[in-house]
Order: sequence, then C-alpha cells, then structure tokens
Amino acid sequence: MKNYVYGIDLGGTTVKMGLFDSEGTALEKWEIVTRKEDSGDHILPDIAESILKKNEEKNIVIDDIEGIGIGVPGPITEDGQVLKCVNLGWGIFSVADKLSELTGVKKVKVGNDANVAALGEQWRGGGRGFNSIVMVTLGTGVGGGVILNGKILTGSNGAAGEIGHLTVNPKESKSCNCGKNGCLEQYSSATAIMRMAREGLAASNRVSMLRDYKEVTGREIFQAYTAGDELAKEIVDEFAFYLGLGLSHVAQVVDPEAFVIGGGVSKNGQVVIDVIKEHYEKNVMFALKNKEFRLAELGNDAGMYGSVRMVLE
Amino acid sequence: MKNYVYGIDLGGTTVKMGLFDSEGTALEKWEIVTRKEDSGDHILPDIAESILKKNEEKNIVIDDIEGIGIGVPGPITEDGQVLKCVNLGWGIFSVADKLSELTGVKKVKVGNDANVAALGEQWRGGGRGFNSIVMVTLGTGVGGGVILNGKILTGSNGAAGEIGHLTVNPKESKSCNCGKNGCLEQYSSATAIMRMAREGLAASNRVSMLRDYKEVTGREIFQAYTAGDELAKEIVDEFAFYLGLGLSHVAQVVDPEAFVIGGGVSKNGQVVIDVIKEHYEKNVMFALKNKEFRLAELGNDAGMYGSVRMVLE
Repeated sequence: MKNYVYGIDLGGTTVKMGLFDSEGTALEKWEIVTRKEDSGDHILPDIAESILKKNEEKNIVIDDIEGIGIGVPGPITEDGQVLKCVNLGWGIFSVADKLSELTGVKKVKVGNDANVAALGEQWRGGGRGFNSIVMVTLGTGVGGGVILNGKILTGSNGAAGEIGHLTVNPKESKSCNCGKNGCLEQYSSATAIMRMAREGLAASNRVSMLRDYKEVTGREIFQAYTAGDELAKEIVDEFAFYLGLGLSHVAQVVDPEAFVIGGGVSKNGQVVIDVIKEHYEKNVMFALKNKEFRLAELGNDAGMYGSVRMVLE
Repeated sequence: MKNYVYGIDLGGTTVKMGLFDSEGTALEKWEIVTRKEDSGDHILPDIAESILKKNEEKNIVIDDIEGIGIGVPGPITEDGQVLKCVNLGWGIFSVADKLSELTGVKKVKVGNDANVAALGEQWRGGGRGFNSIVMVTLGTGVGGGVILNGKILTGSNGAAGEIGHLTVNPKESKSCNCGKNGCLEQYSSATAIMRMAREGLAASNRVSMLRDYKEVTGREIFQAYTAGDELAKEIVDEFAFYLGLGLSHVAQVVDPEAFVIGGGVSKNGQVVIDVIKEHYEKNVMFALKNKEFRLAELGNDAGMYGSVRMVLE
C-alpha cells in the first residue's frame, strides 16, 4: 500500500477534494469551483491540476499515491464510464481513463455520488459496523445508495439505488423532474416538504405555528411537528408515509442490515427516524421488521470518504 | 472437480432430486415424498437415504461427489442456516451441517427455494446470457429471487428478493397471508387472478366468455383477454398494473439486466410479458427502461439446476 489517496466529490457547483493517508485519515481538505462551461470540459483538467499542485506543495511523487477516488453526479458503470451527466454537460466517456491520463495516477476509481456517499457512511459514518446498508439522502432531491457486503451495488446501467424515483404514488397527477409521476422525491425531499408547507399555508387561514416563521424549511416544520402543530403533522405524515413505504420496497428487495438517513432533512435528528420507522414497519414482511435506522454522520464529507474507500478496498 | 453433484429442490409435498455430472448435465431425476410429520424431522434423513441408495445403485463413492445443493422453502442465511420454515415444521438450524453429517458429503450448499430457482434460470434457463437477473414466479403465491453477477442475493436475514410481499397497494383493506395489506401476491398470483374472476362473475350478470368455461384459471383468463373479453381485460389489467409497478420498484433498487417470469401464469406466454412491460415502463426512470423480459424455461426443474449451480460456482 502506498502512502496517499485522493478522495474527490464532484458536485454541480464545487468539487470537494481531500488528501488522505492509506489508513483513510484525512490529512487535508479543500474545494475548487466546478466550471461547467464548454460542456464541462474543464472539470477534470481543473481537478488534475489541483492534485498536481497539492503533490508539489507536499512533496508527493506519483509513486507515493495509491489511487484517486471520485464520486460523480450521474450514472456510472462498474468500469468507470459515465453514462451522461446532465448537470455537468458530460456525455459518455471513461472518467477513470481520463483522470488517470491527466494525473499519471494509474488507479482511478469512479462511482455515482450518492453511491459513493453511501459507501463513505458505511465505512466511517452512521453505517459503521454494518456490512450491508442502504443510505437515503433527503436534500433537494432524494438520493440513494445500496452497499452490499461493503461494496457499492452499481447495477447493470449504473442506476441501482435510485430510490428517489421509486413510484410510490402511481395515482399522482403532478410530474417529477424525471418525467414520471409519483416519485418518492415528490414527497420526501427537503424541497417537497417546503412545498407542502407553502401550499398548506396558502390553502386556508387555519392556525399554524408555521405562519410565525420568516422562512419555513425542514427545520421549522419538524420544530412545529414536535410542538404539536396540526399542519406540520400533516406534512410530516405525508413525508414519512411515502418514505417508509419506499424503504419497505428497498428492504423487500435487498434485505440490508441497516438504513442510514442523511441529507439536510436528517439534521432534525431522531424524530425523523421515528416517523419513518412507523410507516416502514407497517409495510415490510415479518422477517424484515426491526431493522436498524441510523443518522448519517459525515455530512458533506461522506463522498470524499467513500471515494477513498473505493481505492482502498 | 469431482464427477457428480446432487441437486435437490425441497418442496412442501415432494422432494425433487437430481444426479448431475460436473458439467451440470442431469443424469437422472426422481422424486420422494416430503414427510412433514414430527416437525419435519424425517425430511433430511429421507433425502440422505435416497442419495446413499443412488450412490450404491450407481457405484458412486463419497469421494466422487463434488457436493450437494438444496433449495428450501424458507429464509436461509448465507452460511446455510434455516430461519424457520413454517411449511415443513422446521425451526432454526443448519441444514448444511445436518445434511453433510447424514451423507458424509462435505460441501453442502443451501438456499431459499425461490432464490435457487432464480439461479437455475440464470444459469441454464430463460436468463441465460445475463449475469444479473430478477426472477418472479407467479404461482399460488408470488416468489422472487435476485441474482447479481451470477450469485444469489441472500440478504442479511435471508429475506432478499421477497417481491411477492412488496406493498404495492397500501390502501388495501384485505389482508395477505403474511398479515400485511396490499402485497403484490394479492393481485398477481395465479390464486389472485382466479379470485378476481370469481368475484367479477359473481358481482353482476355482465356478459363474459369466462362464464362459458367449467373452471376459470389463468389460462382461461388470458384466452378471454386475447379474445377481447372485457371482464378478462379488467382482471389482466389489475394483475399487470401491480406486477409492473412491483418490478419497477425492483429495478430502481438493483437495476438488473433482465427479468425472468416463471410459474404457472407465465405459461400463457408472451402476452404475459407484454402486459407487464406496459406498466413497468410507465413506472421506471429513464435509465431503467427497455429491460429484457424473458419467460422461464426450466419449469419445475429450475430449483434442481440452481442447487447444482450453488455447488459448482
């Protein structure tokens, strides 16, 4: 094993980068801007340049580097090909080959960002101690990642673990961003619960604590829920009903040891797990009841840790 | 590799047994009765006796046997423990150790029967040529098995691939045998479509071809559907709606290369696939569209083949 590993989480606005030792300890973290112009052609050269600069700064030679891991916001095949990445303007090509060529580092491991974050949480975060977990990230959308026996489940088209687009309500008339109707993301993302609050407040003059806040985000909704506010209860119930149902589907298919809940909404803590579990338990068969539910611990660093893990495993 | 493998499919009424060569070619197949009395205590000794008798008949010594594979109708852990098997009266114990002890054959591989049948179909049946498939068996109930990269996905409690108990209709008031409400099995098993026909015919005097048959099974329902019968169309639509939805859930989680449809209902051929696909396509995201759907080919032998494959892989 060589001395250093680079762990990278490529996002739509910034690239999170980390230099790690071969034990997986973070030595340094920094960010660069994701330049999306020109079909995203600058992104990998920028990342390579930043790595080479860090090497110089730290007196690291290429032979000291075990590898580079990178999480990318799009479907990735098992051999490191990206199959389009709308956010970045990317088409189909091998991220692994390209980044290897640009840096001179042979071992480059590439994964989908949500899957890589799940791997990070399983390795060093809320999923520590479990071999098989499913992570669900409740943010702008709903992301997911399935880790089986310590490895990312990629799927035949890089689309395994796309939990946010489980059709949990086939009767829904409104469309999801993905073009389908009734996706989990339409009810259980941060965006969705904020929308429900807005709509709920606009629909009538009913009394609600939510009217007292300047801005209503997940935090205010869960605060009001805990305080017994009725509108907040309706919103949280809908959020939890669909999320519990969606996670029950996941369990019926892969039977993981634990679920790890991350993303902005998870910052409201144990109450989030409590409400999800209630609906999860109703919708799984006997053998799948009483799974462990944990909160994510690594926040925005999960992707970097997972990237490092891909290199070290 | 030694010369022989035994492949066994343990069912609630009969045990299907096969002697195979090390290429996976069936040399002989036979059945014995499943004696369920005395908490199923005779089952494994009966199987062992039958194997030892076959050895004698064929002049096979223990050292000629590569291993024994067996599919069991209950949840099985990765190390061959059965976690209760209500149908057989079994509690929790190691089927692998017990059968090994009774036969003198060291390598005994145990799997859940639906999973093992899926492995058989992936290896030698409708899933040939694909590494990752999901099989769904439409019989008395709805069984499922997930094969990823040529291996059974067992799950942490032996409950992966329990597709029949996906909650596809959380608003259902009637209970499934498993105690939940709205399981896929309640709409898409052979039992379910026969029930729908019975109820549909009893509910009114509407004209339907289904009234002309002495007995209405899946076969008559699909015949009438193909002939344009309206009641049959309603039944097939409900069957296909929930099955397509359920398989969309499976795809969102594991992204297999193909689905293999087996069990009695699948004997109605391509029309079954056509109606399922229509609803599947509506409910999966873009990257998961256009999956391959195949009919199972091995019928009741799938479990035997899968058992052999567990030994040979």
